[in-house]
Amino acid sequence: MGKKSKSAISPTREENYNEWYQQVVRAADMAENSPVRGCMVIKPWGYAIWENIQAGLDRMFKATGHRNAYFPLLIPKSFLEKEADHVEGFAKECAVVTHHRLVEGPEGGLIVDPKAELEEPLIIRPTSETIIGASFAQWISSYRDLPLLINQWANVMRWELRTRLFLRTAEFLWQEGHTAHATEAEAVEETRRMLDIYETFIEEHMAVPVIKGRKTESERFPGAVDTFTVEAMMQDRKALQAGTSHFLGQNFAKASGIKFQNAEEQEQYAWTTSWGVSTRLVGALIMTHSDDDGLVCPPRIAPEHIVLLPIYREDEQRVAVMAVAEKLAEALRAQSYDGAPMRVILDDRDLRGGEKNWGWIKKGVPLRVEIGPRDVESGSVMVARRDKGARDKESISAEAFPERAAALLADIQQTLFARAKAYRKEHTKVVDSYEELVTYFTPENTKRPGIHGGFAMAHCCDTPDNEAKLKELKLTVRCIPIDGDRTPGTCILSGKPSEQRVVIAKAY
Amino acid sequence: MGKKSKSAISPTREENYNEWYQQVVRAADMAENSPVRGCMVIKPWGYAIWENIQAGLDRMFKATGHRNAYFPLLIPKSFLEKEADHVEGFAKECAVVTHHRLVEGPEGGLIVDPKAELEEPLIIRPTSETIIGASFAQWISSYRDLPLLINQWANVMRWELRTRLFLRTAEFLWQEGHTAHATEAEAVEETRRMLDIYETFIEEHMAVPVIKGRKTESERFPGAVDTFTVEAMMQDRKALQAGTSHFLGQNFAKASGIKFQNAEEQEQYAWTTSWGVSTRLVGALIMTHSDDDGLVCPPRIAPEHIVLLPIYREDEQRVAVMAVAEKLAEALRAQSYDGAPMRVILDDRDLRGGEKNWGWIKKGVPLRVEIGPRDVESGSVMVARRDKGARDKESISAEAFPERAAALLADIQQTLFARAKAYRKEHTKVVDSYEELVTYFTPENTKRPGIHGGFAMAHCCDTPDNEAKLKELKLTVRCIPIDGDRTPGTCILSGKPSEQRVVIAKAY
Repeated sequence: MGKKSKSAISPTREENYNEWYQQVVRAADMAENSPVRGCMVIKPWGYAIWENIQAGLDRMFKATGHRNAYFPLLIPKSFLEKEADHVEGFAKECAVVTHHRLVEGPEGGLIVDPKAELEEPLIIRPTSETIIGASFAQWISSYRDLPLLINQWANVMRWELRTRLFLRTAEFLWQEGHTAHATEAEAVEETRRMLDIYETFIEEHMAVPVIKGRKTESERFPGAVDTFTVEAMMQDRKALQAGTSHFLGQNFAKASGIKFQNAEEQEQYAWTTSWGVSTRLVGALIMTHSDDDGLVCPPRIAPEHIVLLPIYREDEQRVAVMAVAEKLAEALRAQSYDGAPMRVILDDRDLRGGEKNWGWIKKGVPLRVEIGPRDVESGSVMVARRDKGARDKESISAEAFPERAAALLADIQQTLFARAKAYRKEHTKVVDSYEELVTYFTPENTKRPGIHGGFAMAHCCDTPDNEAKLKELKLTVRCIPIDGDRTPGTCILSGKPSEQRVVIAKAY
Repeated sequence: MGKKSKSAISPTREENYNEWYQQVVRAADMAENSPVRGCMVIKPWGYAIWENIQAGLDRMFKATGHRNAYFPLLIPKSFLEKEADHVEGFAKECAVVTHHRLVEGPEGGLIVDPKAELEEPLIIRPTSETIIGASFAQWISSYRDLPLLINQWANVMRWELRTRLFLRTAEFLWQEGHTAHATEAEAVEETRRMLDIYETFIEEHMAVPVIKGRKTESERFPGAVDTFTVEAMMQDRKALQAGTSHFLGQNFAKASGIKFQNAEEQEQYAWTTSWGVSTRLVGALIMTHSDDDGLVCPPRIAPEHIVLLPIYREDEQRVAVMAVAEKLAEALRAQSYDGAPMRVILDDRDLRGGEKNWGWIKKGVPLRVEIGPRDVESGSVMVARRDKGARDKESISAEAFPERAAALLADIQQTLFARAKAYRKEHTKVVDSYEELVTYFTPENTKRPGIHGGFAMAHCCDTPDNEAKLKELKLTVRCIPIDGDRTPGTCILSGKPSEQRVVIAKAY
């Protein structure tokens, strides 16, 4: 691969990271802005990735005893008022349904029917703690009804001002787990179990390394006693909160009246949790792995594992090449990868070879296989891995390839994870003073707009004063890590004793 | 089984059909009304059935080249105004978002912020033709972009006055397919292909027989050129529209500007289709198969295929019984039914045996297997089929049962379908005069409230006059059947020549 070769995505990450992201999404045909403010259209390639995320997580949720259910999209205003902190956090910017009819206006067209005003405004759910709490209060009466382990796949809406495809949109898709338990210990255990499931899924399926940790007070979910998070580093070295798991104590149980009789026939409030990940994960996937040629999709989550690209000029060549390609497609589909048949696409569209090839590069398909007349003669195929350079190809025996394909996919998955981990390590720095912190987040030069310091590992106590000081630098404590170094030290902002280092970074 | 045995559901179908339905839903723990007017909560058992419907249909959609995508929940008012008939049909009763913020009111609590009024009201989608049309207009420019075959799984909302769980709710879940084609013939073919898929799925997976047909003009989808339907007969002999497939001609293409250049470089409007089924199918399932003991679930769609019920009194018995039960569960899960591992639940809850057994009867699990100390001794199990009487059990060798289970499930599936078909045949009548029609739909006695005549097969022309006359009898033409008898005759209402008999019935 020539050093000065032009990349498929312009601008590159270094030239303009934010614009690069938009261009990767566009080039892979994953999503686009809609005519509705802040709402996106998720196109088939982007949606297929979300479906794979859903399928993988859903299996893990069910394997741990959770069952799916569905609750109303609309939440009565009075429900939001029940939990004070929750009001503060969610009632502010939301879509409010006030009427239930349109009528023809005096000048033609449609107007809102003033006679059809609702008695109580309804809110499109920004999250469902309150409406699900109302059901839980009815469903639970005895300790025998606990634990109650429910998950919902749904759309939610938050009236965001600044939106970016997948990362922050007014409407987004997510799952929200809601559970109720008889004891505090069980609820805490559930909160941590689901955090572990997020870590496992995001690292092993999406090849995105995460740091598991506890949120500081100001970053907690409104109404939660404790919020846990998995934080990932994007290639601009900003942190992205990839999933959260909340221990809600008895706050929501009290607000919604979720009570049960224990074995001693005493009435008690249940202990509840909630946890969620969203289509934001697709954004995390893109920004962790993609390069200046477009999307790079880890095999376990890729809509297609392998694309076969027949190459020919004349009709006579076509017959021979397509015969080999079709036989190969069949052989590959009979192979299993990640517990299911391999996903193989044979691209026989009437397009130039280069256009086709680059199309699939930009879509991030893990393996591209070229089959031309010369390959047919020699009984081989040209295999290119998406985690290597676009012009880096290996000739493999056509007969041997199907049996090798699963191992190649597994190797790509592993390589992407190792690469992301190495990148995070490279851009994580132990920081021991405020000055060091400032320097770390001051760009060395202006040639790389939108690329930031990284993860600063620093002693910093969880106080409003400290949060305010960090905010001046546009930084936040991303989390107090659960695993790793717990050596105490001195807070770099207050000078007081600190129990352990925390992760400080800019964030999405 | 005693002849006077009490049924598990009260009232029975004959006593009060409508109330029986509600009680079946409740007893199977499938859904309930929510605090939000007209919206239901789909509980885990009901949602699992919907998940199985989704999975089966999704496979069939993908196998025919469709890809899933996701479009915004909210539709600008101006979009609805684009297609005149569509306005008439959908813009009337809908949830209207007018504001984007709540603020604290002067007397505490939250009020709608008058300063946060939207410039243009947004409607929660009642269906997505208009918003998807806007995307299609952008995505399509050449004949090479066609056909475009998209499906969306989503929630939609229609402000219904009278609601019933699953059958008619303000919010419901559905899939909506939207496709665009270069020619009228291809679009018509697609409309029919998807109708065939609905027929196959509903008959073969859900064991619900349907009549495929064309809708009359007044029952057409607003804006469609032609609407096709699959109509099923419920046990109250009313018709339920189980799915529809619409040929939209160029109406929506013109409204949304979906144009393409053909191979001769001429600009043309595309031909579009849309088609959908919803959570209403769960209602159809319940009302087709269930009996006075509760839900009866066809195996292919059942959340669990087999429930194992260990029976013991003393701890010593427990050990032996549970050992056999666990071994049996393992052996059954290793078996395959309908292309996937058998779904088996071992119910070891600390409840009385009768309560457990009746609980699973009411939930409609196809096979119940009792394992008691005497069965352990004799090496057998007691197997009960949900399609037979509650006390009808067969002793089967524990060793042989796993290998027989799939055949038993297949037989239950077949039996339920045959039974439903026979019921429909029994309550379908060739009707040759208006008087006969009136008599057919006049209840013989008042002891069976809510049970109606059936399907009247009559000659009846598609005219507004005829529709009005039928409406007086609370009847509609459910469809003009595609298959079957095409003998011409004389319209029973107008006396004019008629091309073929149509299905006339009361309907949900």
